[in-house]
Amino acid sequence: MENFVFQNPTKIIFGKDTEKQVGQETKAWADRVLLHYGGGSIKITGLYDRVVASLKAAGVDFVELSGVQPNPRLSLIQEGIELCRKHQIGFILAVGGGSVIDSAKAIAVGVPYAGDVWDFFEGKAEIKTALPVGVVLTIPAAGSESSPASVVTKEEGDLKRDIGTDLIRPKFAILNPELTFTLPPYQTACGVADIVAHILERYFTRTPDTDLSDRLCEATLRTVIKNAPIVMQNPTDYAARAEIMWAGTVAHNDLLGKGKVEDWGSHMIEHELSGIYDVPHGAGLAVVFPAWMKYVYQEDVNLFAQFAVRVWDVEMDFAHPERTALAGIERLKAFFRSLGLPVTLEELKVGTDRLEEMAAKCTERGPVGNFVKLDKEDVLAIYHLAK
Amino acid sequence: MENFVFQNPTKIIFGKDTEKQVGQETKAWADRVLLHYGGGSIKITGLYDRVVASLKAAGVDFVELSGVQPNPRLSLIQEGIELCRKHQIGFILAVGGGSVIDSAKAIAVGVPYAGDVWDFFEGKAEIKTALPVGVVLTIPAAGSESSPASVVTKEEGDLKRDIGTDLIRPKFAILNPELTFTLPPYQTACGVADIVAHILERYFTRTPDTDLSDRLCEATLRTVIKNAPIVMQNPTDYAARAEIMWAGTVAHNDLLGKGKVEDWGSHMIEHELSGIYDVPHGAGLAVVFPAWMKYVYQEDVNLFAQFAVRVWDVEMDFAHPERTALAGIERLKAFFRSLGLPVTLEELKVGTDRLEEMAAKCTERGPVGNFVKLDKEDVLAIYHLAK
Repeated sequence: MENFVFQNPTKIIFGKDTEKQVGQETKAWADRVLLHYGGGSIKITGLYDRVVASLKAAGVDFVELSGVQPNPRLSLIQEGIELCRKHQIGFILAVGGGSVIDSAKAIAVGVPYAGDVWDFFEGKAEIKTALPVGVVLTIPAAGSESSPASVVTKEEGDLKRDIGTDLIRPKFAILNPELTFTLPPYQTACGVADIVAHILERYFTRTPDTDLSDRLCEATLRTVIKNAPIVMQNPTDYAARAEIMWAGTVAHNDLLGKGKVEDWGSHMIEHELSGIYDVPHGAGLAVVFPAWMKYVYQEDVNLFAQFAVRVWDVEMDFAHPERTALAGIERLKAFFRSLGLPVTLEELKVGTDRLEEMAAKCTERGPVGNFVKLDKEDVLAIYHLAK
Repeated sequence: MENFVFQNPTKIIFGKDTEKQVGQETKAWADRVLLHYGGGSIKITGLYDRVVASLKAAGVDFVELSGVQPNPRLSLIQEGIELCRKHQIGFILAVGGGSVIDSAKAIAVGVPYAGDVWDFFEGKAEIKTALPVGVVLTIPAAGSESSPASVVTKEEGDLKRDIGTDLIRPKFAILNPELTFTLPPYQTACGVADIVAHILERYFTRTPDTDLSDRLCEATLRTVIKNAPIVMQNPTDYAARAEIMWAGTVAHNDLLGKGKVEDWGSHMIEHELSGIYDVPHGAGLAVVFPAWMKYVYQEDVNLFAQFAVRVWDVEMDFAHPERTALAGIERLKAFFRSLGLPVTLEELKVGTDRLEEMAAKCTERGPVGNFVKLDKEDVLAIYHLAK
């Protein structure tokens, strides 16, 4: 086990009707806030009205900025920064999924910074301060509701880059599983793939002696695997929606990777996909992760066998552990497919003409991943395995 | 799943040599602190010298109060409160195990309170403020390093009572598994029993649909069960010591019980034992928990069968689930015994002459536990089952 620091102070407020607490939670941080959200879905479901009523009841003024798209764009973030400065905003309330939250976090670091906020994403400047952010979560997926990360796409050059600092961990996150009842099946499935990927990035490590972290990962994976088919079948099953939502937070609140060198290669490989083709992040991960696993599993066959046995109840083939390892990868792929997710680039409707370009861009700042350090040729080979 | 709030901001600093960071972590909170510890063991191991050197290097003044005993006493706490007031102390640094930390927490709430600190433990006054507390942990057991609780014994009347408030969660906790290499086997085993008990108090619940919490509990239990025999065999096995230490924190940082109505009956039943007989808390729990389980398992045979199957790899007897349930309880008992722990009152050297008195005291403020609400007769029956 590696030395580590673990601190996650985000206040999670979980359960039915909890969005009604958003006014009082927000009021503790500021009197005037930016209400940040995506398209019209929160208006259709009535969530927008309930949030606004709660803010008003608590005496919180707000300015609105909607229009966040999946894979949030730099241009809207720059607009948000200007808006916050103009209205002397002290807090950003994100109502939505990971894209909205990531957009809010980027605005939060941009407001007090004199330069271009993209500097942070290019590693040209260090984040010293940020406005506080709060969340009402509508999509269990990105885990951004208690994470220190934000991923943003710069339209010019199709660049998808990320920042990470404890300064942008949300102060509170309100999670009502009922808000996820209306998620379309494909979006639910993409969220599940994202959650699973967050766990796998932490699971596959070269750090020895990570027993508790391994088992916490397996526990969270099994919960997601058990409950995902239930919510696909019955979108209003509160218990199953609650398990998925809580698992989505636990998967990415940093606990599951403690003591390990985490991987994150597959995320980097996927970012190039969704950066260029604007596919849902979760769908891209469902394609990339099994391919990555096939490419690297021989580096630690026993760990991949452990994954197969403990997560998927594959019987250990002691004479041929690699068969067990491969069976686990196939089970993961079959699971994604059973949720209606693509598991090949072809199914994702991504052509093969720009694979070289993506592999080059993915590795332009050096090799990606830690389980195996992947250079351009490795990444290209993984794209080809995913065809 | 029940609605819940989860927030645990304690900064965990985990790994080799981390006690060297205590000065800088403490300095962030105060310039003058109370250094609180137990007997001479931290002087023998050299930990005391390292902590003092780190405090001095960071420019932190300190006043010392040693002498905390297992089952920390009110009298020393009152002495600590006076000392803090006299020296205008702004922070309490606990170096030790759960007793030292609980003592520090009690001092922390007592200093700014005009009345008798015992008022809080009797529920006669509400805690409004507290000095901040930090921890260098030497015994993985109580989980007090990131919990909101403190348990104290008032000598007069052998009363063992607890308080709980987020105000006393430690600001930081330094966990170096190497500091546990010198723990005597019996103390290591008692710590393991305490950790296991903290998980079981959260595991056995009547709340339906707690899949993720169940599995996180099982993951943590399996880690402890796997690694406990290793540290008993080889006290300086860093990897196994690290798993136990991290599991001890995870077991009691509130995560594992989220969404559940937790039980805590066994802890109340044990408190009467260690209040009167001054037995180690963990040893008392090793005696009480299996007896409690036998007394209540018929209320939810399937949950106890799940425990047996998932935690102990007992084969499910589908025709007779109660046999599976009972086999799980026997496995737990055998595990405690294998660590050299007592599993009966007789082995604990506690006579049967005061069982009535303990059962009455345990329930004097009403029934205890939630899985089953236990009144005096129930508690007495459990003591008898534990004979």
